[in-house]
Amino acid sequence: MMILRSSPPSPFGRKVRIAADVAGLSSRIDIVVADTIDPGDSLRRQNPLGKIPVLMLDSGQAIFDSRVIIEYLDLLAGGGALIPREPEARIRALTLQALADGILDACILQVYEARFREEAKRDANWLKYQSEKTARALAALEVGPPPASSDVGAITLACALGYLDLRFAGAWRQDHPRLVAWLDEFSGRVASFEATRFIPV
Amino acid sequence: MMILRSSPPSPFGRKVRIAADVAGLSSRIDIVVADTIDPGDSLRRQNPLGKIPVLMLDSGQAIFDSRVIIEYLDLLAGGGALIPREPEARIRALTLQALADGILDACILQVYEARFREEAKRDANWLKYQSEKTARALAALEVGPPPASSDVGAITLACALGYLDLRFAGAWRQDHPRLVAWLDEFSGRVASFEATRFIPV
Repeated sequence: MMILRSSPPSPFGRKVRIAADVAGLSSRIDIVVADTIDPGDSLRRQNPLGKIPVLMLDSGQAIFDSRVIIEYLDLLAGGGALIPREPEARIRALTLQALADGILDACILQVYEARFREEAKRDANWLKYQSEKTARALAALEVGPPPASSDVGAITLACALGYLDLRFAGAWRQDHPRLVAWLDEFSGRVASFEATRFIPV
Repeated sequence: MMILRSSPPSPFGRKVRIAADVAGLSSRIDIVVADTIDPGDSLRRQNPLGKIPVLMLDSGQAIFDSRVIIEYLDLLAGGGALIPREPEARIRALTLQALADGILDACILQVYEARFREEAKRDANWLKYQSEKTARALAALEVGPPPASSDVGAITLACALGYLDLRFAGAWRQDHPRLVAWLDEFSGRVASFEATRFIPV
């Protein structure tokens, strides 16, 4: 049995959980919640960076980050289930993943600004610099949403849009009708997207 | 001719330049400097995130980030030159790349804290949280440095250590003699490491 260290709200953990489902590997993975802030959590021995997700193999080998875990799951499933094998399609899917990961990184830096800093130390210019990355990426994607797919690019984009729903009240929806339709189609087809949604209590 | 958008001090750009050299592809790539801060730079049309490096193909296709560019170069060179083909070695090399990329991300957040914020808005706890990621990663690597290699994991680790030399005055060297020896061996074997060193004027 493999063990996935993650936490329910993590968008990068969600990527991996959806990918495991798409690859037919969910039943081989137990999820054990990790606390990235707790110095005593074994997470920091598994991944010295203290970041989630991490996939632990029976051998004790730790695989991270989410991109590498997904490549591992793809190899385990025989290749091509998550990352296209054909070179051009592969690079397009991986570039879309990088774009959506970049949206997530910019969003998370905005969330951390409020979580880690007292109000006087928050910086409006920094927040604007990060939010503009997200805005430009969404604008580019709205011009030409990717084709319907369950590859690593589509999974990551769905998780990025889901994170904008969770942490930014879905404000992106108003100006991006084609992306809304894209996500509706993905969500209707890949059941684990809805099943992995984090609902704050 | 491919065009690499980068800037001389960028550690992620350096990764790609060394990878292109190792894969024997440097002569097919022109480097065009990009300014990540300038809203008018075409970079933001090539990569909406406004991040470097980006590889532009003759077709107009933009490939990013550094991990995806390196995978593209590996495919272009026939596969296996930069990323091992054998699954276990592949995942180990990619996890090492993720660890070294994580060191770089934590370092860059510390550098940006000084570059983007007035002094009153800098946060000692945030800086400590980031620097501890680097410290734990270096400690883990010092226990067991990776084997001598020119794969994507080794290239990225060399660039991370080079960035610690550039931005943190090489303080890491004192407590990590095995990593110093590892970098000396890499640097002596892969000439493009020294050739891509950024020297501030």
